[in-house]
Amino acid sequence: MTKTVCSQVDPFYFHYPAGATIITSHADDRDNAMAVAWHTAISREPPYYLISISPKRYTHKLVARTGEFVVNFMPMEQGKLVALVAGCSGRYVNKFDAFKIAAQPGSRVDAPVLADALAAYECRVVGRHTYGDHDLFVGEIVAVQWDAAVFTSDGWLDIERARPIVYLGEDRYATAAEAVLLDREVLVRSALGTRP
Amino acid sequence: MTKTVCSQVDPFYFHYPAGATIITSHADDRDNAMAVAWHTAISREPPYYLISISPKRYTHKLVARTGEFVVNFMPMEQGKLVALVAGCSGRYVNKFDAFKIAAQPGSRVDAPVLADALAAYECRVVGRHTYGDHDLFVGEIVAVQWDAAVFTSDGWLDIERARPIVYLGEDRYATAAEAVLLDREVLVRSALGTRP
Repeated sequence: MTKTVCSQVDPFYFHYPAGATIITSHADDRDNAMAVAWHTAISREPPYYLISISPKRYTHKLVARTGEFVVNFMPMEQGKLVALVAGCSGRYVNKFDAFKIAAQPGSRVDAPVLADALAAYECRVVGRHTYGDHDLFVGEIVAVQWDAAVFTSDGWLDIERARPIVYLGEDRYATAAEAVLLDREVLVRSALGTRP
Repeated sequence: MTKTVCSQVDPFYFHYPAGATIITSHADDRDNAMAVAWHTAISREPPYYLISISPKRYTHKLVARTGEFVVNFMPMEQGKLVALVAGCSGRYVNKFDAFKIAAQPGSRVDAPVLADALAAYECRVVGRHTYGDHDLFVGEIVAVQWDAAVFTSDGWLDIERARPIVYLGEDRYATAAEAVLLDREVLVRSALGTRP
């Protein structure tokens, strides 16, 4: 396909869907929540998860101070909550009260795990790096919670049973659908005539 | 919902869909390609993108040596290519030849941009960090390429016109569907009675 090329990089912001997570924190006897789309697993052993947060955000201050956060993976049905959390700051609003967010403290951190999350990673900060207008917080995943009813026995999210929410940029969201199995070994063997 | 809690963190590997990208590199007159699901934007101004790669991977060596990579965002229709690229190592296979991958060099880097990518970020490495069993490479996005036919005029991927591929773990993939618009300002105003 023909591509538009741009070196100004201005419109780079969101070319691809990313999971719409809610990052929670806890400080001064209060829970806070923030919508974050810039996040990824980065290591399997030990398990580390990375989130990128602007220093302007209230959550940035709380995570920096407490050294803890929880990554909550939400279902499509909670899209309204994700948008509400994204639409205001914990500096001015107690979001858990205002939006009646059901949650309980993590099993190993004080930051809360949302009742409606499909899965949640409880993290302790082990690294921090500034890049441009955001800071990276690297968390060691010290506990995982998940709704076993929507995961396969070997631990994969079954999108026939739950609809994960993904972020398309601005105020637009979608879910994952049309699951397919593409067996890499079979495909490679078929393409190369042998397993390399 | 009732959650299973685990502090062993062994089954943490993949609880949520992530974009299935192909990372390309170029060295010694040869292109290479690798499937990567651990990646995210981390800064808007300047634009930085982060990928996490195991030092065991051939691409790790190439990116470390050349200081360049391209993030190719693929459509669902190229799922077989993603699985093929994921299924073998560039140490043993010239994937571009073996799988007849159409590409051309980036506009500002030597690493190739795949012809079938919906969008691609040309990156120059500005930072590297080791966490656990992977290394983070932080790239400054020095150019962006995208197929204007599948993006809105304000730069968002239109999933009615293109089907981005997302990775569900193991050999399972899906696409994004059922786009919804959730206007955060309207929702917050309605929930709080005012814009905070």
